Amino acid sequence: MEFSSKLLERAVNEMSQLPGIGKRTALRLVLHMLRQPKEQTLALSEALQTMRSDVKFCKCCHNISDVELCEICANPKRNKDVICVVEDIRDVMAIENTSSFRGVYHVLGGKISPMDGIGPHQLNIASLVKKVKEEEISELIFALSSTMEGDTTNFYIFKQIKDFGITTSTIARGISVGDELEYADEITLGRSIVNRIPFESSIKL
Amino acid sequence: MEFSSKLLERAVNEMSQLPGIGKRTALRLVLHMLRQPKEQTLALSEALQTMRSDVKFCKCCHNISDVELCEICANPKRNKDVICVVEDIRDVMAIENTSSFRGVYHVLGGKISPMDGIGPHQLNIASLVKKVKEEEISELIFALSSTMEGDTTNFYIFKQIKDFGITTSTIARGISVGDELEYADEITLGRSIVNRIPFESSIKL
Ligand SMILES: [Zn+2]
Ligand SMILES: [Zn+2]
Repeated sequence: MEFSSKLLERAVNEMSQLPGIGKRTALRLVLHMLRQPKEQTLALSEALQTMRSDVKFCKCCHNISDVELCEICANPKRNKDVICVVEDIRDVMAIENTSSFRGVYHVLGGKISPMDGIGPHQLNIASLVKKVKEEEISELIFALSSTMEGDTTNFYIFKQIKDFGITTSTIARGISVGDELEYADEITLGRSIVNRIPFESSIKL
Repeated sequence: MEFSSKLLERAVNEMSQLPGIGKRTALRLVLHMLRQPKEQTLALSEALQTMRSDVKFCKCCHNISDVELCEICANPKRNKDVICVVEDIRDVMAIENTSSFRGVYHVLGGKISPMDGIGPHQLNIASLVKKVKEEEISELIFALSSTMEGDTTNFYIFKQIKDFGITTSTIARGISVGDELEYADEITLGRSIVNRIPFESSIKL
């Protein structure tokens, strides 16, 4: 791509560093900005900069927060002894959205993935193990995605905490509520049969 | 979407103002920034801001430029009497890429579109008509997209300049080089037959 302006070229190059944004998309976005009032681009660039430099991570669960302790950890009504282990804050948002969980979270910040050069030490695993060791935790719920990396990460953590005598569980995999069986993928359908639950407990839901 | 941080929320909201970027995509991009060094977000936000406030438009052809007169208009080897009329700078970039045009451009900045509230006065049409009237222009090549809006815009300009005795042309529409006829859309195929060219001139290409 040949640009008639260095300023334009630099803006497009920086935008196209973002995942999933190619040069063409970046150019389309940047040309859109030029058609909008200056204030709009200023607001965007200011918001990104402030967010990147001032955002904090909760010192307890590593959730993104504007204060030292996130709202969930600071809430006295949440059960601090049940910890749901998730990959990133999007999972926290998704689970909170269901209003079905009253415990707290622990955000790992990713999963172990040798292919992407991510080892256990780049993740918030040590602080989780420390928590289990030193605080009164009764249950750890693994809610990572069910991929090889997710399973590896679950197992890595499990090995380190299994001697502390706490309950560990993983979220149930099964057919989505309202879905037709014939459209479910084989693995999910298989798991939903292996992990079937007593009918009485299903009608309580 | 419930955010655990106002800073994060604002960044996501600003990002999702961009066309084609929904809230989910914006969140994904912003979380990516948080995983990268601070300098990267700083560079992006700085590049956008500088681009938006300092970029200039060529005073002759309205192409984006860092100086008063763009490189194409300032080049003494380009034929100033042949003007290719395009919608936006992406078209200039695309045509320049082919190295097949030695004239200059005129960037309209869009096309007439009553549906989107874009009339002729929001486009760089008056300056084009003035050029044709006052300078020695021999040919105007319309290279707008072949949509109803493109045709309307072409015709609007044509009406204003038709009495000045210059040649007007539009770029050829036809089957892409290397494409199979059976996959071409009907309209393009139809036009390619109506606008067929002498075989002798095709083998010169
Ligand atoms: Zn927290
Ligand atoms: Zn120019």
